[in-house]
Amino acid sequence: MTKMEHTHISLAHGNGGHYMRELISKIFATYLANPLLDTESDASCLPAIDGEIMMTTDGFTVQPLEFPGGNIGSLAIHGTVNDLAVAGAKPLYLTLNAFIEEGMEIAQLERIIKSMSEAAREAEVKIVAGDTKVVPKGQGSGLYLATTGIGLKHQQCRLSMQHIKLGDQIIVSGPVGDHGTAVMLAREQFGMRGDLQSDAASVLPLTEAILSVPGLRFMRDPTRGGLASVIYEIHQATGLGILLQQDHIPIHDSVNTVCEMLGFDPLYLACEGRVVAVVAKDDAETVLHKWQQLPNGKEASIIGEMTQENYVAVQTPLGGERLLEELEDEPLPRIC
Amino acid sequence: MTKMEHTHISLAHGNGGHYMRELISKIFATYLANPLLDTESDASCLPAIDGEIMMTTDGFTVQPLEFPGGNIGSLAIHGTVNDLAVAGAKPLYLTLNAFIEEGMEIAQLERIIKSMSEAAREAEVKIVAGDTKVVPKGQGSGLYLATTGIGLKHQQCRLSMQHIKLGDQIIVSGPVGDHGTAVMLAREQFGMRGDLQSDAASVLPLTEAILSVPGLRFMRDPTRGGLASVIYEIHQATGLGILLQQDHIPIHDSVNTVCEMLGFDPLYLACEGRVVAVVAKDDAETVLHKWQQLPNGKEASIIGEMTQENYVAVQTPLGGERLLEELEDEPLPRIC
Repeated sequence: MTKMEHTHISLAHGNGGHYMRELISKIFATYLANPLLDTESDASCLPAIDGEIMMTTDGFTVQPLEFPGGNIGSLAIHGTVNDLAVAGAKPLYLTLNAFIEEGMEIAQLERIIKSMSEAAREAEVKIVAGDTKVVPKGQGSGLYLATTGIGLKHQQCRLSMQHIKLGDQIIVSGPVGDHGTAVMLAREQFGMRGDLQSDAASVLPLTEAILSVPGLRFMRDPTRGGLASVIYEIHQATGLGILLQQDHIPIHDSVNTVCEMLGFDPLYLACEGRVVAVVAKDDAETVLHKWQQLPNGKEASIIGEMTQENYVAVQTPLGGERLLEELEDEPLPRIC
Repeated sequence: MTKMEHTHISLAHGNGGHYMRELISKIFATYLANPLLDTESDASCLPAIDGEIMMTTDGFTVQPLEFPGGNIGSLAIHGTVNDLAVAGAKPLYLTLNAFIEEGMEIAQLERIIKSMSEAAREAEVKIVAGDTKVVPKGQGSGLYLATTGIGLKHQQCRLSMQHIKLGDQIIVSGPVGDHGTAVMLAREQFGMRGDLQSDAASVLPLTEAILSVPGLRFMRDPTRGGLASVIYEIHQATGLGILLQQDHIPIHDSVNTVCEMLGFDPLYLACEGRVVAVVAKDDAETVLHKWQQLPNGKEASIIGEMTQENYVAVQTPLGGERLLEELEDEPLPRIC
């Protein structure tokens, strides 16, 4: 671990002076170093990008900061990488904002930044600029992060909800609700424990595997609001109905068990490493096959299709239908 | 003002569902709308940028959220525009992260986002993507913002502290310490009032006016840590000394008065609309003249020069010298 003058963050670590310089050089620059990150400049200079640029941003407030399968740092990298990936872009450069609460343990901050570094390396993105602010004790909750990313749009790729047609198939790349459930179990307030891991991961291998499929209409990673919210958004944007097959939606047994005990619907719980794709009927098996060959796509499944109804429903194994409503109240706050 | 279903922010405004969609469409999208901002996509698609790209990011935690001369919203636009401007780039596209505290008054949020919109229009930048998170009451302080920007580097421009030479002149574009002092006076805790306004503004007109001056070596906007911290950073990076002339440093009388009463040194207080430029001796008058013709440069002044000493000092009008030390403790937290 890095030797800093203090063990915990103080307001002086955010004041633009000596201690801030120490924090940035010994923690942030140590782990996130790359030739484009210049912690002494106001802005970083990037090589020219030949093509259309995609840009996205995301904030992270997950509690607890560390959970089985990840922490807020790796999550902040995956989240922004995934937003670019599902938009059909190759993520290139990220920036990082950290709002650190006075009193945070520096060793924990270091673990989190180290995870960011590993996640960035895995997704082949560089962190090119950053900013840290320290907020007074009691006006944060350890650490909030924001990451912003730019990527190069794949030329062949014209994804949009507007391309979705009647009969198109809905495919999900893996079990839903793992992240939300794992984070919830990591909160001591529930008095429950489990060995479930968050699914938090880069979805780049999944998206790149299917970008060339001609019938691919649209992709999204279901995070806040879960699978149900993505499905509902597609319904709102297209005006078409959606019918999901309940027994085709992959859900881990442990997720179902926890949700039954606590009264949550796993379809509304966040994932952080899954993709929902809408694909023309003729190409659905192709996408499914490509995904099932990947480590994070083994449990991919065709879960439903676009209908001409004006509602979203889930068909139960017995043939009944239940309506899927838009999320109103917060089932599980602070999971991303 | 916009009609929302609630007057104050609740956790449900951050959950990915109905209320979040209402908040984004009625506040954020209403004021920040432009053809590139697609609040229904994971990432926005930008036109190709022909040339080198500069990228920067900044976080904002100022208290109070609104102060004479600006608010956290306009500050968040100016801050990132200014980081690109002093790096010699034309700012093009910004993203926005908002960490909103449960219980924030929606009317105040609306005023702040409206100010952002005006500041963005003035600097001719577009907000192309955004993200909002709601944190529980008592784990924020109303609103934290982060903005990330990309800009096009001016071809002629190769600014760096490494180009600074012995004898180069230090020029500041206007009075220092206004922002820090105005924010401080806006805090009721000090029991003082004044008509001083923050200097928060885009510095783009100032930087663009002098980019073509051949002897321009380096620019920076003195924010956290004030003029003194910029001067100290230049000293650290170049290994050269700096001698400032105290009576050449423009400081408003009201700033001096407040600082004397409270024991602050105005050289360490934040500005949010000033530029410090380091310029070859032969070109210093040219820069000064160009700045003095601009509305925000009327009080520009040559305040010192690079020396061969190994320290930073301020010469008093009587000829004495006092050392300028690196900031250690926080004189005035939460001013940006």
